[in-house]
Amino acid sequence: MSLVITPLLDIPLIKTGDDLVQIIWRGLRKNSIQLDDGDIIVLAQKIVSKAEDRWVNLALVKPSFQAIELADKIEKDPRLIELVLQESNQVIRIRTGTIIVEHRLGFICANAGIDHSNVAGNGDQSSDWVLLLPKDPDASAQAIRLNLENLNGVKLGVMIIDSHGRAWREGVVGVAIGISGLPGLVDMRGKRDLFGYTLRITTIGAADELAAAASLVMGQADEATPIVHVRGFPYPLREGNLKELLRPKEQDLFR
Amino acid sequence: MSLVITPLLDIPLIKTGDDLVQIIWRGLRKNSIQLDDGDIIVLAQKIVSKAEDRWVNLALVKPSFQAIELADKIEKDPRLIELVLQESNQVIRIRTGTIIVEHRLGFICANAGIDHSNVAGNGDQSSDWVLLLPKDPDASAQAIRLNLENLNGVKLGVMIIDSHGRAWREGVVGVAIGISGLPGLVDMRGKRDLFGYTLRITTIGAADELAAAASLVMGQADEATPIVHVRGFPYPLREGNLKELLRPKEQDLFR
Repeated sequence: MSLVITPLLDIPLIKTGDDLVQIIWRGLRKNSIQLDDGDIIVLAQKIVSKAEDRWVNLALVKPSFQAIELADKIEKDPRLIELVLQESNQVIRIRTGTIIVEHRLGFICANAGIDHSNVAGNGDQSSDWVLLLPKDPDASAQAIRLNLENLNGVKLGVMIIDSHGRAWREGVVGVAIGISGLPGLVDMRGKRDLFGYTLRITTIGAADELAAAASLVMGQADEATPIVHVRGFPYPLREGNLKELLRPKEQDLFR
Repeated sequence: MSLVITPLLDIPLIKTGDDLVQIIWRGLRKNSIQLDDGDIIVLAQKIVSKAEDRWVNLALVKPSFQAIELADKIEKDPRLIELVLQESNQVIRIRTGTIIVEHRLGFICANAGIDHSNVAGNGDQSSDWVLLLPKDPDASAQAIRLNLENLNGVKLGVMIIDSHGRAWREGVVGVAIGISGLPGLVDMRGKRDLFGYTLRITTIGAADELAAAASLVMGQADEATPIVHVRGFPYPLREGNLKELLRPKEQDLFR
């Protein structure tokens, strides 16, 4: 079976308090897609954050002494750095223009995932607004999934993704930051390989592979969309979560 | 348009000297796919290495003193470590059971991408055979692409992928190691974002996103396949190569 990833076109701009379930539902209808058992809906982090009102007005942020010092060192806005520190467990690397942290959700990313490139606090075009990641993306994905399943009577997966830079390789790629109803990892250890005679020793980052695929479809300049529909995910759906995908600190060679 | 990724089923086991172009061609026919302008064929590294006879018999490898010392430290086979060193520019991290290197092709990966899990030098079931990565995956992809294009008269992309572990996150994901006829990176800097009013500052690792998607489809245990067909890649095809995706050493914060 093919893996088919379909962008939902004509999704309206998302505002604080919007009901994403209704928006996804209408988007599916507009795009003539009927949900089926095993389908997955992938959402860009941005619209979840917006619906959940994760906007912060920088004008109201009072940077700490630590934030001011750090911001000075890397030549960034101290108010932004204050938010980055508030959203992080630990600073991992800094250099001019760049701060890479362990986000409070556990993953490593630049700027704590705070979005300053798309500046518009509910229509306000001033550049003082930034958008934080959802508070609990697994829970957000779960709530959306259960509501969508109730509307349909089918078993679904829902995933929230963001674009992260990577060690060693150029270019951002889509990664999972919130998961419900699909596996984060798929354990192939003990399975026979392609050729039937050797045991595999690999664990596959299946949700991240799907996140990358979905991001590819979302990422276009002209017909961009924050919601995609996935059919043909090749592994069985099950409860899953972000934590599966996060390597414990003490096992990580690259912090 | 949907992104549609289709595994080519019924691909025979690949042996030294096999003509991958013919195998892809027959695979497409068996799976009732007619190539179209803009389609992309993604190949698992393993079959390219096999066709190119990148097998090495460990029994014939004489480890250097350096390899013996290193192998002792991390508890690996010194003959394998000898090959890893031969295939690498630099050792990046070691610990018991693990060696992460900069491959001579420029990317960072474990074991220099040498495959010891699928041990079968052309049918020999002894575990002394290992499989190196293709000599020049961009060139392999290019040769296959030009031949396929000649058979068809359409413009195609061809990509060779492998599965790599990552810093910080669990699970391997598909990444590009050889590219022809499609972009490695897509530069979105200067483009308007989803909402039309801010400039994007992002470069997208599009080939790696596609590699992850293709890997997802290849990775199944039951109907595994080393060749997938992609339709609906959302960016214009162009000449591309692996190097686009590799961050220069001096700009990398995680070596």
